[in-house]
Amino acid sequence: MINNGRFQSQLQFLLEIDKLKQVLRRTYVTGGERHENSAEHSWHLALMAATLVEYADEPVDLNHVIRLLLLHDIVEIDAGDTFFFDDTGYEDKAAREQRAADRIFGLLPPEQGAEFRALWDEFEARQTAEARFANALDRLIPLLLNYAGEGRAWQENGVSASLVLRRMGYIEEGSAALWQFVQKLMADAVEKGYLVAGS
Amino acid sequence: MINNGRFQSQLQFLLEIDKLKQVLRRTYVTGGERHENSAEHSWHLALMAATLVEYADEPVDLNHVIRLLLLHDIVEIDAGDTFFFDDTGYEDKAAREQRAADRIFGLLPPEQGAEFRALWDEFEARQTAEARFANALDRLIPLLLNYAGEGRAWQENGVSASLVLRRMGYIEEGSAALWQFVQKLMADAVEKGYLVAGS
Repeated sequence: MINNGRFQSQLQFLLEIDKLKQVLRRTYVTGGERHENSAEHSWHLALMAATLVEYADEPVDLNHVIRLLLLHDIVEIDAGDTFFFDDTGYEDKAAREQRAADRIFGLLPPEQGAEFRALWDEFEARQTAEARFANALDRLIPLLLNYAGEGRAWQENGVSASLVLRRMGYIEEGSAALWQFVQKLMADAVEKGYLVAGS
Repeated sequence: MINNGRFQSQLQFLLEIDKLKQVLRRTYVTGGERHENSAEHSWHLALMAATLVEYADEPVDLNHVIRLLLLHDIVEIDAGDTFFFDDTGYEDKAAREQRAADRIFGLLPPEQGAEFRALWDEFEARQTAEARFANALDRLIPLLLNYAGEGRAWQENGVSASLVLRRMGYIEEGSAALWQFVQKLMADAVEKGYLVAGS
């Protein structure tokens, strides 16, 4: 019978992760009506990986990249989304996220929780080709959306092109081709007035 | 150089599909503050597949199930979400969605567009084990969320338990175990007053 403790644990996990739909990021969805949430962001990233996998520097298992991306933000249900340019928030980010991972993946049956947790740990550690490419995409997508939205989120948060470029090393680690594109995109964004050059 | 026509087509596709974040379903997110959108729904389904794959009737390639689910609602950007119990909307649903698939997957470089389109066609046709399981999950998840939300979306849309059970054949086609669970869940929902029994 399916209606046992194992299945109940799995259902509880699935209802718990529904809360990621309410964790908001600084980015806006296309059209600018509202901020993007971390659940739809994760979906967008998974399809971005499928679309842009040819630009990974190293050969990657796309299926594995997709799984890393589907799970990478789950901990934000407890820990919140830490804005990338928020240095204070970053100080205790790792500790908050570890506690969240313990709790949320701990809802699952133990061997399944361990499997999902290992994927989340792998994304964070950036020691595999798949994790490096997944992290590169995670950094790239807000740049694309912010550029498409004429820089609104950059302006609201006082971010400059030079700050973006200094902080985008993860893109360079995962894809030389995408990094080259980002440098051009940032120069273009400054020229169009979407963000300030900075120093 | 990455900044060529191929890459531009891929970026155009990725910005276009961002619009799925604005296609609303009848279901509510946990907490009930707003309706769920089809992008975050697709993310939730992909992780549901990873969590519940052991309940598929036939052996399935989970990676393939996940790709089907990530793409299955893309056409709603043009065609909208057709409420499952809306018979009028269902009359021309197929034609509207075919036109949408032509346009949206047509944004990609041809061989990549054909690959993604084939996954969408496969989901719709339900002729493979992966498509059957993916469709079963797509039908199951609103039941879980509506039950968790004490039946609000069912009540607002005048849906009864007998109607739900008559229309949930896709779950039975994909997973006998999940179908057994759904019958029990609906009986329980009626008992709790979340939806009416119907005839």
